[in-house]
Amino acid sequence: MRTAYHEQLSELNKTLGQMCELSGTTMEHATQALLQADLDVAERLLEDSKGMSKLVADAEEQAFRLLALQAPVAGELREVVSGFQIAADIDRMYALALHVAKVARMRHPDPALPEEVRGYFAEMGRLAVRLAQGARDVLDTEDASAALALDTDDDAMDDLHRHLFSVLMDREWPHGVAAAVDVTLLGRYYERFADHAVAVGRRVVFQATGQTPEQIVGSVESD
Amino acid sequence: MRTAYHEQLSELNKTLGQMCELSGTTMEHATQALLQADLDVAERLLEDSKGMSKLVADAEEQAFRLLALQAPVAGELREVVSGFQIAADIDRMYALALHVAKVARMRHPDPALPEEVRGYFAEMGRLAVRLAQGARDVLDTEDASAALALDTDDDAMDDLHRHLFSVLMDREWPHGVAAAVDVTLLGRYYERFADHAVAVGRRVVFQATGQTPEQIVGSVESD
Repeated sequence: MRTAYHEQLSELNKTLGQMCELSGTTMEHATQALLQADLDVAERLLEDSKGMSKLVADAEEQAFRLLALQAPVAGELREVVSGFQIAADIDRMYALALHVAKVARMRHPDPALPEEVRGYFAEMGRLAVRLAQGARDVLDTEDASAALALDTDDDAMDDLHRHLFSVLMDREWPHGVAAAVDVTLLGRYYERFADHAVAVGRRVVFQATGQTPEQIVGSVESD
Repeated sequence: MRTAYHEQLSELNKTLGQMCELSGTTMEHATQALLQADLDVAERLLEDSKGMSKLVADAEEQAFRLLALQAPVAGELREVVSGFQIAADIDRMYALALHVAKVARMRHPDPALPEEVRGYFAEMGRLAVRLAQGARDVLDTEDASAALALDTDDDAMDDLHRHLFSVLMDREWPHGVAAAVDVTLLGRYYERFADHAVAVGRRVVFQATGQTPEQIVGSVESD
């Protein structure tokens, strides 16, 4: 039975990894659609959301199958339950990437972003994609240091987000309120995407070890 | 064993109900802090967030205890897993209510809201509180019609949210970009709060019956 458990758990983790990959590439393309006001790219993303629904359904089925195995022990139960939570986090990342694509589509043929904030979103997009890849790596390796490293990119995202707000608020913003509203919401989508990626990394480590990444890396350092 | 299962499930649902209640009252007070620029109310909410952490931990422990009961059958597994998901939704509602309180605190002693959008937020706050109460009622009754009724309030919330954006975008908005950013984010917090309340209602019905609220109410009507 333990063999069956570990095989099925690795199948679940593989599905979660695919979900992470899809969220990352979707955010990559959504950012491209946003920066280049590329309607085709935006529409392709928005018309093709069945891939994620299928993966979410697969992940939940795999997790239910694990729960239905005879008498999983306490640690295993936590592992499987966190599988559901990780699936929900990644599904939300995907939804946020689609929100970005929707703004690009809505404003087309105009660019949604005034020139002076494009650089912020190029960088936020790059960080978001890297966070999704990082979360995927943590799913593969269960490595606590890799999970903690996600915090660094998340901090960078928060910094950009704060700077973006100061651009909106402090300078003479010449682009009007409508553009400010778009930029505000878009900034929030990227920031929340990053938060969920960090949550995925933390959950993976906790499910694998029963400890937070800080507890593990701290205890390694104090060895 | 079935008795133990049902007793523990009802204990879990009681905890989830308390969480819903706390999210609702927190949003009620946060809205009050926002509308009246009341720093004391905002700070009291923000200093006192341990109550929800405790309830979330209780709910998760109760759900794990249910999973650890010998061999819960398939429907029971789904019921318990959706308990975790419901807890996450309500926890997020609470976090969004605190976000509202934070904006009120940040802008104090100024009001965060220009006079002309106060009415929108008074109404969005009222709807949010009613949605939290409604979700709590669905937790108590598992009633599909009550879950569907949440959609009506959520639609009203979405309408207000759209109108709010048209106020921001279409008229001569005289309050500057900073106020527009606040109003944009606040509007989103209320809208997401409503989405989570609707999700709670849907999950409760699905966990109890294996059907969506539409399937049930539809099948009743076609009897």
